Amino acid sequence: MQVDQLAIEAAARRIAGDVRRTPLLHLPEWGVLKLELLQLAGSFKPRGAFNRMRSAGAGPAGVIAASGGNHGVAVAAAAQSLGLRAEIFVPEIAAEAKRARIRSFGAELTVGGASYDEARQASEARAATTGALMVHAYDQAEVLAGQGTVALEWEEQAPGLTHLLVAVGGGGLIGGIGAWHRASGVTLVAVEPEGCPCLHEALAAGRPVPATVGGLAADSLGARQVGALMFPIAAGLHAAGRLLPVRVTDEAIRAAQRALWERAQLVAEPGGATALAALLSGAWVPPAGAKVGVLVCGANTDPGSVA
Amino acid sequence: MQVDQLAIEAAARRIAGDVRRTPLLHLPEWGVLKLELLQLAGSFKPRGAFNRMRSAGAGPAGVIAASGGNHGVAVAAAAQSLGLRAEIFVPEIAAEAKRARIRSFGAELTVGGASYDEARQASEARAATTGALMVHAYDQAEVLAGQGTVALEWEEQAPGLTHLLVAVGGGGLIGGIGAWHRASGVTLVAVEPEGCPCLHEALAAGRPVPATVGGLAADSLGARQVGALMFPIAAGLHAAGRLLPVRVTDEAIRAAQRALWERAQLVAEPGGATALAALLSGAWVPPAGAKVGVLVCGANTDPGSVA
Repeated sequence: MQVDQLAIEAAARRIAGDVRRTPLLHLPEWGVLKLELLQLAGSFKPRGAFNRMRSAGAGPAGVIAASGGNHGVAVAAAAQSLGLRAEIFVPEIAAEAKRARIRSFGAELTVGGASYDEARQASEARAATTGALMVHAYDQAEVLAGQGTVALEWEEQAPGLTHLLVAVGGGGLIGGIGAWHRASGVTLVAVEPEGCPCLHEALAAGRPVPATVGGLAADSLGARQVGALMFPIAAGLHAAGRLLPVRVTDEAIRAAQRALWERAQLVAEPGGATALAALLSGAWVPPAGAKVGVLVCGANTDPGSVA
Repeated sequence: MQVDQLAIEAAARRIAGDVRRTPLLHLPEWGVLKLELLQLAGSFKPRGAFNRMRSAGAGPAGVIAASGGNHGVAVAAAAQSLGLRAEIFVPEIAAEAKRARIRSFGAELTVGGASYDEARQASEARAATTGALMVHAYDQAEVLAGQGTVALEWEEQAPGLTHLLVAVGGGGLIGGIGAWHRASGVTLVAVEPEGCPCLHEALAAGRPVPATVGGLAADSLGARQVGALMFPIAAGLHAAGRLLPVRVTDEAIRAAQRALWERAQLVAEPGGATALAALLSGAWVPPAGAKVGVLVCGANTDPGSVA
């Protein structure tokens, strides 16, 4: 399956009854915020999860995923909504609050090793035994196409934006958005925390390579390397000058979280505030005449942590 | 000045560049949420404040208001935006967080007595001396017309709703919304906390009368009695069966705050969650075929308090 506009349009039709059409907030001082943090289960992740499940189908063994974070929560929520069994493998470091949230959607939770990679391997071994449908956190075509629906929807709601700021972890989101905007005039500002620079390193190396994982937003953006499917999309846009990789400090992310609360009464997790951080910190400066969109992509944090 | 649809349309044009057009969130399980908690300064109050200031004008003495809560924050924010001086009189009980927020918009803050009534009297004496423009928290025609713009906007965004749930304090908000819907088929569900039942008591007495002020939402909904301007509007709708007074417990309000966070990632203050509390607690049950709207009207609280 090719991840292109046709696939994204098909995904949007497929999941229209499953996910929320998240609203925009127009702020003259910042731009057009896409409030994807108000999505079902608190992040953009259900778009890809539902598209994968509805495209590939699942048998009586249900679905399986590895993630101690937003993807795990999203797969659990999507499976519950579709009446499917779900097994979520989390690493030992997964926070108790996230584990409780995964369980709250009725999923079975297994601690599958010390790291995300170990949990993923354990989940793959389990899937081979049970026949459960694997839903990858970012490197499956249906997942990219599902995440790309956020770009389609945003364009319908606010046509004419010239620059979209998007946070990058494993790259499923920016891959899907990049696939939607491959032939448009829109420029993507791809924002990574300094502690999780896997897209930056991949673009430097010319291929996905392992990078460090750390810092404030590691729980949602801390992929070790970008996905194989997203890389050619991102590299193509980058070569054309239409994907600008930007890195922000943890301090800038924290300041963006505070600003979102103080000026827009929104609680974003660190990864959800990372795109805005590039704008507010000056790490990226809009060119004259830019019409800026900012994706606020996740809220799954302790609300008391933002003030 | 008559508070009617013409006045509200004029107000909407007058303040269009000042306030945010707040988005909706469509949730099949609850209805159409109007996210007025994302308004400038964290509540619906700037609508009325801007309309009063732009209608009546203000001289070099600027504007003055009495409120330790959302109205004080809104008047400070509106005055700063219009380049006007602002003096805000707060009662001694006003929380330090709210005082800091009022000061953060550049307003001068004066502690004007033990209670809201004392602060209001002190502010009126001060206004008589300085000539500052008084902006009342809920009982001025321009304030009602300004608050009514939320109903106009909501109808444009989601035509066809049959029932609107709205929290009631002094009644400026429901008065403005009632003025907009006086001749429509829409029914207003007017929700008060059990601890602040001043609309309930006024409807029982046939005129505004003092009521108790207490409980979880008293800082935003704790008016001693409803305004003189809103009462005939509310009483007329009530007599016609198109305003249903409903009371909710503090427990129901707290549960609605938690539900807004857990299911929609929104931080509402107790007064902001009061309308939804009527629906979630069953204090009001939608009739078959109802298309329900819920106004989430304020966010000014410690975000850590909702989880």
